[in-house]
Amino acid sequence: MLYKTQNPHGGDLYSYPDMLDFSANLNPLGTPLSVQRAAKDSLSDLNRYPDPYCRELVKAIAQFEKTRERFVLCGCGAAELIYSYCAAVKPKHALELAPTFSEYAAALETVGCQTERWTLQKENGFMLDERFCTFLASGGWDVVFLCNPNNPTGQLIDPPLLEQIVQICHRKGIRLFVDECFLDFTDVWQEQSVKRWLSTHPEILILKAFTKSYGMAALRLGYCLSGDERLLAAMSRMVQPWNVSAPAQAAGIAALGETDFLERTRQIVRQQRSWLQKNLSSLGLTVYPSCANYLLLYSPYPLWGELMKRKIVVRNCENYVGLGAGWFRAAVKQPQENQRLVAALQEILEAL
Amino acid sequence: MLYKTQNPHGGDLYSYPDMLDFSANLNPLGTPLSVQRAAKDSLSDLNRYPDPYCRELVKAIAQFEKTRERFVLCGCGAAELIYSYCAAVKPKHALELAPTFSEYAAALETVGCQTERWTLQKENGFMLDERFCTFLASGGWDVVFLCNPNNPTGQLIDPPLLEQIVQICHRKGIRLFVDECFLDFTDVWQEQSVKRWLSTHPEILILKAFTKSYGMAALRLGYCLSGDERLLAAMSRMVQPWNVSAPAQAAGIAALGETDFLERTRQIVRQQRSWLQKNLSSLGLTVYPSCANYLLLYSPYPLWGELMKRKIVVRNCENYVGLGAGWFRAAVKQPQENQRLVAALQEILEAL
Repeated sequence: MLYKTQNPHGGDLYSYPDMLDFSANLNPLGTPLSVQRAAKDSLSDLNRYPDPYCRELVKAIAQFEKTRERFVLCGCGAAELIYSYCAAVKPKHALELAPTFSEYAAALETVGCQTERWTLQKENGFMLDERFCTFLASGGWDVVFLCNPNNPTGQLIDPPLLEQIVQICHRKGIRLFVDECFLDFTDVWQEQSVKRWLSTHPEILILKAFTKSYGMAALRLGYCLSGDERLLAAMSRMVQPWNVSAPAQAAGIAALGETDFLERTRQIVRQQRSWLQKNLSSLGLTVYPSCANYLLLYSPYPLWGELMKRKIVVRNCENYVGLGAGWFRAAVKQPQENQRLVAALQEILEAL
Repeated sequence: MLYKTQNPHGGDLYSYPDMLDFSANLNPLGTPLSVQRAAKDSLSDLNRYPDPYCRELVKAIAQFEKTRERFVLCGCGAAELIYSYCAAVKPKHALELAPTFSEYAAALETVGCQTERWTLQKENGFMLDERFCTFLASGGWDVVFLCNPNNPTGQLIDPPLLEQIVQICHRKGIRLFVDECFLDFTDVWQEQSVKRWLSTHPEILILKAFTKSYGMAALRLGYCLSGDERLLAAMSRMVQPWNVSAPAQAAGIAALGETDFLERTRQIVRQQRSWLQKNLSSLGLTVYPSCANYLLLYSPYPLWGELMKRKIVVRNCENYVGLGAGWFRAAVKQPQENQRLVAALQEILEAL
């Protein structure tokens, strides 16, 4: 009965009802009221197609991102854009990191692309380093996928290294797909985006999501930015005309009007991430440094199942290429929720 | 700025605000109250992913269609399923009718498929006839696309002919894609579906939409039925995991609980279609016989632009392969709206 069981992700509370969910990396502040209201108001006429061109939304995104409207394409969640990108580019040889978000490889497979992986070393805190550049420059890649900060590690790419990667791709004509869906949660959201190269480096495409930043997972809305207008046009032809629903468009426009929501989000993420890091470490868990709203953790004990018994679900990272048994990821949530996670883990570990 | 301008469809009221819209073939009764309520209620927790497997909805559809859950796959509107079907099947040679819904050819193009067209003759009232079977049996087709009733002609395929087509496809191993999105609006919705062959003919796939039947265009929800479970699994891998939004799933479940909505819909469509046919004919327009909730019309006069001046938009069918200048399609709407269309056309034609 269940199709799509190949890549189970976090956030599947339909399998695990009534659980406290640390498995999806959503905004700890939830959804802004204005977004909820806009979504609700948009339901007044359901018997009407959404704008196939997302005109108002594209205008709002371009203004927010300080870029041209022609550089913006919206999708039914950021995830859809990964698939339409692969369908439009039809790459033969792709490079991605490991571990990373599994949808790049899943989308590349739909077009029969051979995907090679650059394995990040846990000994190195899963940091990308200079050796990657040599590897990138030596291969005949059509496209390289980066996730910055990376999911599930929470690591950012060092800015000088990122610039080097950008220049190698530019020189060698390699397409560069940069997933910045979690960048808004970091303190360097402005300076570490590859956005400043959009106009000069048309091989770059940036992926952004409303899903996480504005707590809109239920509605499905994402967008991408690229200076390659032909690519965006090709991507738009790979999907149906009405891929972005009316409530998603309305909610997105409202979200971009929220002036301090992301700043408040970064503040709570900063505080709570640091609190979780300290407290999970003192329980004896291996906690990897993270700049995002989630933490990659390791423990030799079967914590996932024990947490489930206590109605808490974390993301089991066993199925990530480059990880394996014992790895899991926990979202940074509200203080009380984080305290519940730490208390549960303490109880489990003390009973061992 | 506007990507996706290749295939403008009807219903784009964002280009034509404040118009009386006859260009989209939606339900004249609008959206059932229960559906509106369910969509609204589903917005209470936007910061939560939709069920990637649409479990409750699939169960409800299987019950409604009296088929197995494993035969059901949901999509972000029926339109998305046309694309994931083509991406999964990757046909090389496809056959479709002309004129017909343009998204089949658009989706086939994304996988580089060569599409041949069987042109329906206006002299024949755009009816499919026996000659099509000979053509179908003689070619090396991977897949044939039928739309029953056809859009924009409103014509149903004769049941004995449809059965012949089904058997040719079965014998020759040709995949048969039958778009039944408008079948619910006809009086033969039960007996003329190819559903009865689902279990025995795995090469059949049926496309159905909530969009039109339940006035839910804004939310994007469709599904398909097939006995080829491997195909459905492959289609599900061609799209992102969360393609069907939470409000769409909730609204769909509510829609299937509406016991007499479709019957009331058929009743008004029957009455009003007949009224429109009679009145448009007596104005001198060429009105083609239709079994659906729309009428294909022809006039040598530039009616489309004149109607626009009167704040009425019909579907200009100039861009349909097999039609051309002078053709247009009008939805069957509520009595007052239909009267407004007839009055406007009368005024225009009298002034000529």
